[in-house]
Amino acid sequence: MKKISIRKAGKKDSADILRLINELAEFEKLQPPGKTERKRLIKDAFSKDPPFRILLAEDSGKIAGYAFYFFTYSSFLARNSLYLEDIFISENYRSKGIGKLFFEKLISIAKKNKCGRLEWVVLDWNVNAIRFYDKLGAKELKEWKTYRFTDL
Amino acid sequence: MKKISIRKAGKKDSADILRLINELAEFEKLQPPGKTERKRLIKDAFSKDPPFRILLAEDSGKIAGYAFYFFTYSSFLARNSLYLEDIFISENYRSKGIGKLFFEKLISIAKKNKCGRLEWVVLDWNVNAIRFYDKLGAKELKEWKTYRFTDL
Repeated sequence: MKKISIRKAGKKDSADILRLINELAEFEKLQPPGKTERKRLIKDAFSKDPPFRILLAEDSGKIAGYAFYFFTYSSFLARNSLYLEDIFISENYRSKGIGKLFFEKLISIAKKNKCGRLEWVVLDWNVNAIRFYDKLGAKELKEWKTYRFTDL
Repeated sequence: MKKISIRKAGKKDSADILRLINELAEFEKLQPPGKTERKRLIKDAFSKDPPFRILLAEDSGKIAGYAFYFFTYSSFLARNSLYLEDIFISENYRSKGIGKLFFEKLISIAKKNKCGRLEWVVLDWNVNAIRFYDKLGAKELKEWKTYRFTDL
């Protein structure tokens, strides 16, 4: 009997989503989004033309984790890519196969949308996640450096 | 008198765009997009709801370079980011300030769209580009590793 399922998020899941984002920020040692950002995130997520989509993992009625994704574009493949912006599983729900279920779902969404790639980033000290991604068969893009302007 | 301008691409620029993409592929030592991909790229670029936008640099009536971009989303900022998928300036038009003009335009588009960030990637051996980005004041995200699935 399978108790864990992956499903789309709805507006009623907002409190659970925000709770898990705070858990992720704590885990990644990053500043969690403030009140204004949390409000805007939920507004954007459930707007008419949302800039990202949310999948949730439900374990026996409890929200155990989430994945945020959106579509980017590869000019060389001339196809969309699925970009996984965030994936997080609450501490008590790890090592139950939820990460694998998320990736199966994301790959199926990517295929359905004729994407050429599925991409994401991971912090270099997050060795458990890196081991999991390596085991899944994902490849690290070692020759590309990422640059950013934040003060626009 | 300023001869160089940055403008949006139109369908009539298709041949120039494809010519420059081949130049970029050669420069980056990457496989250039094939016939099917080239056709799909142009179709996508000038479709009703395009998955990416194209800026062109025009120097005295000649197309000298291009930038492809689209909007992604940062969950922590709860804002769009501007993602620069490709930037390329044809060899004969380098060191004329075109790169700087592209970035000024991209930053202005990012601001107008209330983006929190402008991001892109660069190949690690492309030292001229890296020096240029460093001089612009961009920051490398050294602690993040990029992962990809290509066989979907």
